[in-house]
Amino acid sequence: MLKKKPVTGMKDILPGEMAIRNYVLREVRRVYGGFGFTELETPIVEHIENLSSNQGGENEKLIFKILKRGEKLNLKEAESAEELVDTGLRYDLTLPLSRYYANNAQNLPSPFKALQTGNVFRADRPQRGRFRQFVQCDIDILGESSALAEIELILATTTLLKRLGFKDFTVRLSDRRLLTALAKYSGFPEASYDTVFIILDKLDKIGPDGVREELLKAGFSEPDVERCLGLFKESEGDISSLAAFCAALGDNLPAGAEESLRTIMQSVASVSDGGFKICFDPVLVRGMSYYTGTIFEIVMAEFGSSVAGGGRYDDMIGRFSGQPVPACGFSIGFERIITILSEQGFKVPEEGKRLAFLLDKGLSAERTAQILKEAMALREAGNTVLVSPMKKNRRFQKDTLEAEGYTEIRDFYE
Amino acid sequence: MLKKKPVTGMKDILPGEMAIRNYVLREVRRVYGGFGFTELETPIVEHIENLSSNQGGENEKLIFKILKRGEKLNLKEAESAEELVDTGLRYDLTLPLSRYYANNAQNLPSPFKALQTGNVFRADRPQRGRFRQFVQCDIDILGESSALAEIELILATTTLLKRLGFKDFTVRLSDRRLLTALAKYSGFPEASYDTVFIILDKLDKIGPDGVREELLKAGFSEPDVERCLGLFKESEGDISSLAAFCAALGDNLPAGAEESLRTIMQSVASVSDGGFKICFDPVLVRGMSYYTGTIFEIVMAEFGSSVAGGGRYDDMIGRFSGQPVPACGFSIGFERIITILSEQGFKVPEEGKRLAFLLDKGLSAERTAQILKEAMALREAGNTVLVSPMKKNRRFQKDTLEAEGYTEIRDFYE
Repeated sequence: MLKKKPVTGMKDILPGEMAIRNYVLREVRRVYGGFGFTELETPIVEHIENLSSNQGGENEKLIFKILKRGEKLNLKEAESAEELVDTGLRYDLTLPLSRYYANNAQNLPSPFKALQTGNVFRADRPQRGRFRQFVQCDIDILGESSALAEIELILATTTLLKRLGFKDFTVRLSDRRLLTALAKYSGFPEASYDTVFIILDKLDKIGPDGVREELLKAGFSEPDVERCLGLFKESEGDISSLAAFCAALGDNLPAGAEESLRTIMQSVASVSDGGFKICFDPVLVRGMSYYTGTIFEIVMAEFGSSVAGGGRYDDMIGRFSGQPVPACGFSIGFERIITILSEQGFKVPEEGKRLAFLLDKGLSAERTAQILKEAMALREAGNTVLVSPMKKNRRFQKDTLEAEGYTEIRDFYE
Repeated sequence: MLKKKPVTGMKDILPGEMAIRNYVLREVRRVYGGFGFTELETPIVEHIENLSSNQGGENEKLIFKILKRGEKLNLKEAESAEELVDTGLRYDLTLPLSRYYANNAQNLPSPFKALQTGNVFRADRPQRGRFRQFVQCDIDILGESSALAEIELILATTTLLKRLGFKDFTVRLSDRRLLTALAKYSGFPEASYDTVFIILDKLDKIGPDGVREELLKAGFSEPDVERCLGLFKESEGDISSLAAFCAALGDNLPAGAEESLRTIMQSVASVSDGGFKICFDPVLVRGMSYYTGTIFEIVMAEFGSSVAGGGRYDDMIGRFSGQPVPACGFSIGFERIITILSEQGFKVPEEGKRLAFLLDKGLSAERTAQILKEAMALREAGNTVLVSPMKKNRRFQKDTLEAEGYTEIRDFYE
């Protein structure tokens, strides 16, 4: 007997969930399309060298690796798994997009507003609600260095979330350069900035005392830690908090970082017609090591962790083409959004009627043809018509059909 | 420097082609949805045991295999590649669908009308127009043994092709049981039936003389070969040809096969409102070894090989669940259809207007916010609005935008 369960950590998607996924993807294409984003696709299989180039942080440990084929596979002499593979499954859409842009820039507009949706793969420890194959949905603006990129990304993403029925969410905003300046201002040694950032990222969860404890435990000096934590007391997330925070950092902060954050916050707030807040959050970190400037995410109090995240990564494309290209992207948590909608009992709006035609076994060929013709005409007019043989247990058959959304059930006898 | 080309045999999809692909997928969902097909999804990664179970014919030689992870990978003691892998990339959608149905039947309606679209992978020799990652698009009816399944599959597929603008195509129809009866009638030894079928499949390309030559070269006896070829002279593809062919086969043909083909041909012809022909083709073979009954494909004279194919595979699901379930499917050649539409210069119908707002560098924050607000209102009303910084070479920028379909370009200065 063959195996009937899906492979570990991956899932079969049932029609009910699939309808919600398709609905969200339709809205994604409609809303992002309205902002001038155009869709593209990269292969799911990527060069192992690209996947292992230290852009992906922890994800590089979770790559599904594909065995070389034919003569290239030299099992006898191979001393490590690396010698057996030349490709792997992509773990995100940002790295392949950078490769794509380097490869196709001459055929793309500049700036290029890119929309991608597709499966990515991470061999994470299996756990509830987390799968090894999942869909990401990213928008990116490549070739645009001004804050207009961030503003359009945030307006597009918040418009989509509102269209999907979400409200009362908050866009949290910061800049990698502020984090670096903070570490410098505090006096932490430069080699351990990343360690500091990972601990600071936990402020929301473990509070200032927890962060203090972890920083001290990691061996940082008490005066440095206090200097760092001292800066957070004032921040309330508004423009004046940003100004105060930046003023305290002084010369540690490069020119332009504060102005850019202020422009983004003010523009988004004045253009949007409400429904969400945008605020400066000095301890926003975002995991990926490739970010170089603005970073942002969207949180909703009722759903814990973030439902969207992104930032500026001006150095990545240059690693493929040799020519640096400014780049900024925003990714919605597609699977998270699907889970939330499913749990809320979201119903996809129906277009047209849903009819079921049940055919008795004894129908002649002529009568069957007549019925099928009627079904074809109703379908042509935009309705769904299921044609099915009538079953012995008709009560059960009708209940099942009604549960599937068929509101009109017709029986046909000779 | 990282690698900027995609991996061998796979491709980056540019926005122009992507728009056509999305359009076709929208029509697929609309038309098949109207017939009551519901969409599902299986993981791209499948158990290697399932992929290597002799259901997939030649495709099983073309599997991308994924390396085991962690402790499971025992490189030192492995003597063959098989010991290093436990999963691979699916090479079609039919095998995973059978696994899916066996796994989820209790949560699915019966009969189950399934729609799937998704990437499949085959490590074929790279050649023009043929890729190692490509999209398949299948409809299947599971749990329905009557000819109603075939009729609905053919009506749905031909409706879709007509909706996509194709006409003058031909549905070719036969039954695996006729082929077996033919081989028996001719006197070929049972063990070599598959060899006979593969050669017969070439009749279209190499003609009766070519087939005769190949059969004789393969060692079959001259009387058997002549007896076999003698049957084809009469066939003109209509109902009476079918009757004559079946009459000649006599007792070699199991009961019901002829009647089922006749019902399908007559029903489809009388229900459809024309635009295509349906005919009996005694030498239709179809490659996959899992077919058990009806087989069919759609050809268009101008495009050479087939644009859709399928058939009945009543034994496959039982290999997963132990319980046989009748099953029948039809698959359009998605990539082939995209190639044909692209080469014909197909333009995706636009919804709403496409406007480009070009912003001068000197604009104040207030004015920029005003412009963005106007863009948001136009988007809300269903239009596409691209907001972009004005470039120095304005002529070039406008030409590029017009080529992208932006019909209204507005310049904004302070």
